Amino acid sequence: MGERMTNLPTVQSSGEPALSVAEAIAKRRSHRHFKPDPLPEGLLDEVLGLATLAPSGYNLQPWRFIVVSEPEAKERLWEVSYKQPKILEAPATVICCGETTGWATTLEEMLAEGLRLGAYTEGYSDHVRKAAGPVVEGWGPDLWVNRHIMIAATCLMLAAESLGVESCPMEGFEEERVKEAFDIPEDVRVVCIVSLGYATEPPKAFPGRLPLETLVFWQGYGQPKA
Amino acid sequence: MGERMTNLPTVQSSGEPALSVAEAIAKRRSHRHFKPDPLPEGLLDEVLGLATLAPSGYNLQPWRFIVVSEPEAKERLWEVSYKQPKILEAPATVICCGETTGWATTLEEMLAEGLRLGAYTEGYSDHVRKAAGPVVEGWGPDLWVNRHIMIAATCLMLAAESLGVESCPMEGFEEERVKEAFDIPEDVRVVCIVSLGYATEPPKAFPGRLPLETLVFWQGYGQPKA
Repeated sequence: MGERMTNLPTVQSSGEPALSVAEAIAKRRSHRHFKPDPLPEGLLDEVLGLATLAPSGYNLQPWRFIVVSEPEAKERLWEVSYKQPKILEAPATVICCGETTGWATTLEEMLAEGLRLGAYTEGYSDHVRKAAGPVVEGWGPDLWVNRHIMIAATCLMLAAESLGVESCPMEGFEEERVKEAFDIPEDVRVVCIVSLGYATEPPKAFPGRLPLETLVFWQGYGQPKA
Repeated sequence: MGERMTNLPTVQSSGEPALSVAEAIAKRRSHRHFKPDPLPEGLLDEVLGLATLAPSGYNLQPWRFIVVSEPEAKERLWEVSYKQPKILEAPATVICCGETTGWATTLEEMLAEGLRLGAYTEGYSDHVRKAAGPVVEGWGPDLWVNRHIMIAATCLMLAAESLGVESCPMEGFEEERVKEAFDIPEDVRVVCIVSLGYATEPPKAFPGRLPLETLVFWQGYGQPKA
């Protein structure tokens, strides 16, 4: 686990330095079509490793990722995602899942690792054992996993972009059919799917954003900056 | 709007270069206490601007951010967030809100800007007018805004980290009381709150993550890498 924190990628496969956060956010655009070019060896493990470094409440890590990269699996996903061509085209699409109850199954393993690394005490572990369930239930497990998975999915997209790999997040899929097609348990939510690869074309023109004054308030909802 | 895409910050206030995505993800840790030190002039606008560059379905941008930085406003938020000291301590805490219906109010302004910038056609705009509502309703507005706001909140945290500012996302708040205290409309969800500033202490030991084999599957749920 520790190696995920220390062995950080510093260059793109082109040899260019990895992008800064601001560069990755600004450069990342959703693409409609991908080239069939494969991803560089090891890149998927790298960006998935970075995604799992995302923060989660009590370090519960409710995310599970299914990489869809074999032709037969791509076809399965394409069928249940409104037949979007990019799923067949992209070298990999990641199904980002949220464990509404599965986080409890891995709780003791997570706590043991935290103890081993000197991050947790027995007292803190006991606190987490008691507190985690009520927090998840308080927000509702569906809402709670959707929030958490999107943190990790965003890390995944930005990490990919910083290493020269383009991405496209999609909400166009039929959740129940995806679950059937990929043997996903009943209590797991499919939160989003993200294609990774190289776009066939430069991005279309940037469509802009609403003015910052519309999106950002100060000290109260609707209040402008003083 | 265009300037948000071009005027990207490249250095931290220390003069060090802005962090790469991998560095920011690995370095970002949740902190319990913050120094009262103010944020550098203009930094909040910069990271909020980057957060609003996050992708959203049909570019609907359902996020609204309330910056809480005045002592009186901090006290209001602290009261409804289980009196966590960091809310009083940090120079700013951002309340990240999701518009379950408000995205429709800004739809025409968003489409007009996309047309102006040459990103949209009239035909595409008509498609968005018809398609957006059913997509939001299909997922359920609560789930949909929670997903979207977490993309932007993650961009916010990583952008801050890349510029040398630490952050702490929190799910410990009473949503209804936050809404009352900050005049947030009924149909808006409070998705998370994020404190920004400088931690009083180095982060505690890294608690580790579950093995990649537990978190990542290939071609189907539960399937190991071939």
